[in-house]
Amino acid sequence: MVSLPPLVAGIELGGTKIVCLLARGPDAIEDRVQFPTTRPDETLALIERTLDGWGRFDALGIGSFGPISIDRGAADYGHITKTPKPHWAGTDVAKRLAARYAVPTGFHTDVVGAALAEARWGAARGLPDVAYVTVGTGIGVGLIAGGLPVDGLTHSEFGHIRPDRLPGDDWLGLCPFHGSCLEGLAAGPAIGARAGRKGEEIAADDPVWEPVAHVLGQLCHTLVLTGVPRRIVMGGGVMVGNDHLFARVRAAMVRSLAGYIALPEVAEPAFVVPPALGGNAGPLGAIVLGAQAWEQHQQSFTAF
Amino acid sequence: MVSLPPLVAGIELGGTKIVCLLARGPDAIEDRVQFPTTRPDETLALIERTLDGWGRFDALGIGSFGPISIDRGAADYGHITKTPKPHWAGTDVAKRLAARYAVPTGFHTDVVGAALAEARWGAARGLPDVAYVTVGTGIGVGLIAGGLPVDGLTHSEFGHIRPDRLPGDDWLGLCPFHGSCLEGLAAGPAIGARAGRKGEEIAADDPVWEPVAHVLGQLCHTLVLTGVPRRIVMGGGVMVGNDHLFARVRAAMVRSLAGYIALPEVAEPAFVVPPALGGNAGPLGAIVLGAQAWEQHQQSFTAF
Repeated sequence: MVSLPPLVAGIELGGTKIVCLLARGPDAIEDRVQFPTTRPDETLALIERTLDGWGRFDALGIGSFGPISIDRGAADYGHITKTPKPHWAGTDVAKRLAARYAVPTGFHTDVVGAALAEARWGAARGLPDVAYVTVGTGIGVGLIAGGLPVDGLTHSEFGHIRPDRLPGDDWLGLCPFHGSCLEGLAAGPAIGARAGRKGEEIAADDPVWEPVAHVLGQLCHTLVLTGVPRRIVMGGGVMVGNDHLFARVRAAMVRSLAGYIALPEVAEPAFVVPPALGGNAGPLGAIVLGAQAWEQHQQSFTAF
Repeated sequence: MVSLPPLVAGIELGGTKIVCLLARGPDAIEDRVQFPTTRPDETLALIERTLDGWGRFDALGIGSFGPISIDRGAADYGHITKTPKPHWAGTDVAKRLAARYAVPTGFHTDVVGAALAEARWGAARGLPDVAYVTVGTGIGVGLIAGGLPVDGLTHSEFGHIRPDRLPGDDWLGLCPFHGSCLEGLAAGPAIGARAGRKGEEIAADDPVWEPVAHVLGQLCHTLVLTGVPRRIVMGGGVMVGNDHLFARVRAAMVRSLAGYIALPEVAEPAFVVPPALGGNAGPLGAIVLGAQAWEQHQQSFTAF
C-alpha cells in the first residue's frame, strides 16, 4: 500500500521573516503565509493564529535560525539559545508549538531543513548523503547522512572552522569570536569589507574573490573528509549572485585534496552545485522535518 | 524479553596484525586468535581457518585498515581500495567473508570500530555521540552519532584536514599528498622528524609539542563544529605515551573555539579523554560492527 505523505505544517523561522507552509510536498501546497520576524511573543502568536486557522495537520516541522537546542535530553530543548537577535535568546519555540498542536514535531536549523529539501526534491534529489552550504550574511552548513541530519550534542557550525589561507593572506577577518574563521573571511560582510564596496559592485575578476574561493574550497575539502556528502549544494546571497564562484570553489577543493580522495564523484562538476529550490528550500525543509518526525512516530508504533 | 546479545566473530584487520575475537561483549569472550598480517591470500585463508574452527556464530564484524569501500551500492563494496600496503590494494575482504559464512556482516574502518567499542563499553560509555581519534603512524577519526557510524559516500578522513598553524610555524610537514595537513604535522613520524629523534626520547617540555598540541586542538575544534561528539576519545601511540598532551590539546581547542560553542560539556576536562579499552578496542569494535549488522537484519524482518 502506497500511502499519502503526511500533511505537515512547516515553519521557516528566519531572522527577518517567517514562512508558514501547509503542504505534503512541493506539488501539494495547500497554503503559504509570510510575515516579518518581530518580537518573539508577537511572532509566535502570529504563527499560532496561522496554524490554528489551518485546523488539522499530521505533523509540525520547524527550521529555525540558530543557535538552537536540538538535544531532546536537554532542559532547553526546542529553544533558540544565545542569539544576538534582540529578545530572542532563550525563547522556547518547539516545545510550545508541539504542546499546542500535539502532533509529532521536528525541530532543526534552517540549513538542515534546506539540505533535506534539496536532497528530497532539489539539486541533490535522490541522494541520501548531502551537504547544504549557505554563504550569505553568515555561513552555515546542514549535513545529511542516510537521509537524516547529522548531529549529536548540537547542530553543525562548520561556518566557524579555521581554514588554511593562501600564502601571504593575513587579512584579519570579521568574526567577533574567531577573526579569520571561514565566516569571518568569506561571508557577505567580510567580502564587502575586504573589497571596500558592496557585494553587487564587485566584478567577477576582482582579486578579492581569490582568497574567498580558496577558503570556501577549504570548507568543501573538510566536508569531503567527513566522508558524508555525495554532493555539496551551495546557496545563499554570495553564491547565488556570483555564478563564477562554483568553478573556482570546486577547483580550490580539488587542488587542496590533491588526489587523496580518489572517488570519481568528488572530481565531477556536479559535486558542487547551486540549489534548485530557491526561496522555497527553507519552508519545504520544514515540511521534511515534520514528515520525518511523523515517520519516526509511526515506526515507534509499528515496533510493538 | 531481554535477549542475549548475538555471538559475533569479530576481525580487527590491522596493517601489521590481525585479531580474531569470538564474543558477545567484553565479559563474554569465547576465543581470541592473533597473527601477523602478511599477503592477502595467506592472511584471509588464516582468518577463514580460524572462523571455520569456531563453527556457528550469529554475525560477522570487520574493522579494517583503510581506505576501504563501505558504500553498499558500489561495485567495490567490502574492498580495501588504494592502500600503499603491498598486495592489499583492491582486495575483497567483506564480500568474500560474508558469502562464506552467510551471516549479517558489518564492515567499517578500525577507528570507527574503536569508537563504537569505547562508546559501548569504554571511555564514552553510554554516550550516543562520540569521536574516537587515533594519533599514531597516521591520524584517523571515527565519528558516531546516535550510536551509529557517520558516513555516506565514504568513511571519514579527518586526519587530512589542513589545520590553522601557530604564528610563524611554517614547517612543511610529511604527508605525501598534503604536506602540512594534520597527519603530516602531528602523526608520530612527523613529530619524530621535526624533533630530530625518536618519539620515546622527546621530553614533555620539548618545544616540539607546542605546534603538535595546537593542530590537534584544531582537529578537536573541527570535530566540535560537526555538532556530533559529546566526548572525544584520543588514543594511538602518540597520545598513550604522552599524557601531558591531553590538557594541552583541550586548552588549544578551548582557546580556538573562543567561547563560540558555549555548551558546558565542551569546556569540561572529561570532554577529551584517553581510551579505556586499550588494545581490545579494535577487536571489540569489530564485535559491535557485527552486532549492529545483526540488529539491522533483525529489524528488517520485524518490519514485515
